[in-house]
Amino acid sequence: MPKLDLEAIEQVNRTGYPPPHDAAVQGRWYRRLAPPSGLTDFAVSHVVLKPGGWSSQRHWHDGEDEFLVLLEGEAVLVEDAGRTMLRPGDCAAWPKGTGDGHHLINESERDCIFVVVGGGEQRGGGYSDIDMLFTPDGQYIRKDGTPYGATRRPD
Amino acid sequence: MPKLDLEAIEQVNRTGYPPPHDAAVQGRWYRRLAPPSGLTDFAVSHVVLKPGGWSSQRHWHDGEDEFLVLLEGEAVLVEDAGRTMLRPGDCAAWPKGTGDGHHLINESERDCIFVVVGGGEQRGGGYSDIDMLFTPDGQYIRKDGTPYGATRRPD
Repeated sequence: MPKLDLEAIEQVNRTGYPPPHDAAVQGRWYRRLAPPSGLTDFAVSHVVLKPGGWSSQRHWHDGEDEFLVLLEGEAVLVEDAGRTMLRPGDCAAWPKGTGDGHHLINESERDCIFVVVGGGEQRGGGYSDIDMLFTPDGQYIRKDGTPYGATRRPD
Repeated sequence: MPKLDLEAIEQVNRTGYPPPHDAAVQGRWYRRLAPPSGLTDFAVSHVVLKPGGWSSQRHWHDGEDEFLVLLEGEAVLVEDAGRTMLRPGDCAAWPKGTGDGHHLINESERDCIFVVVGGGEQRGGGYSDIDMLFTPDGQYIRKDGTPYGATRRPD
C-alpha cells in the first residue's frame, strides 16, 4: 500500500540527546516513515513540532544531505546567517559537510508539520551552539573528545 | 541559503519519453531541486501537475526507492491494486523492485503540487501499461529489447 497510513505509524518524541540538551526537543513528535514502508535508500521523518519545540539542536552532518518541506503552520529556520521564516510549501536543503548548523523552532501558537529526508553516509557531525559532536558510530561526545555516554537515535 | 527560492529555479515540462508516450506528461511542470541546492545523496523534484496531467507513465524502478508528499490540490494514485486519492499532507512510498507500477493523475480542475524524492542506484525499470522499459543507462527500449532511440531525462 504505497499511500502511508500515518496514524498507524508510531509517533514518538524520543531523543538520544543527553541532558540538558534533550529538553528543547520534547515538543518534536515524529514518525519514521522509511522502515514501515520498506524504503532503504534514504530516511524520511514526518514531524509535528509543537509550539515552542525545536526540530533538533542546531546541527550539521558531515556525510548526509538533508531536505525539508514544510506542510502546515510555520517555523523559524536558524542558521549561522540568521533567521528565515518557513511556511507551507517552503523547501530547504542542507548539503552535507558545510559546518553551518541548522534547526527549526516553532515560535507560533499552533503545530508545525514538516517532512524531512536524509541520505548519505553516517560520518558524524556537530552542533553549533552547544559543546557536543556526534561520531560516525552515533556517540555523543564533547568537543574535547570526552563522551557523554549517550547514543544518537536510540529509537 | 538553505531555504530554496523556487521561483528562481527553472521549471520545465521536458521529457525523454518517445512519442506517443510523451503526450500524457505535458502537464507535468517540474523543478529539480537537488542540483541548485548542492544535494547529491538523493534527487528531489518539486512538481506542479496541471489538470489532466500525469506525473509519469505508470512505472517502477529496479534500483531506486521513491517517496512523495502532496502539498496542494489532489491527484489519483494508480497502481496494480487500483486507485487511491491523495490529498494535502498525504505521503506515499514506493520501494524499489516491486514491479508494481505507479503514477499520479490530476483528474481535478486545479493544479496539484507535490514533492518527490528518489534515491538508490539506477538499475532500470519498467512501465505497466505500455510496451516500454528503461535500462540502467537510461535508454528506452521495447519489451522485446528493440530501442526507441530515446533517452531518459535529457534535461
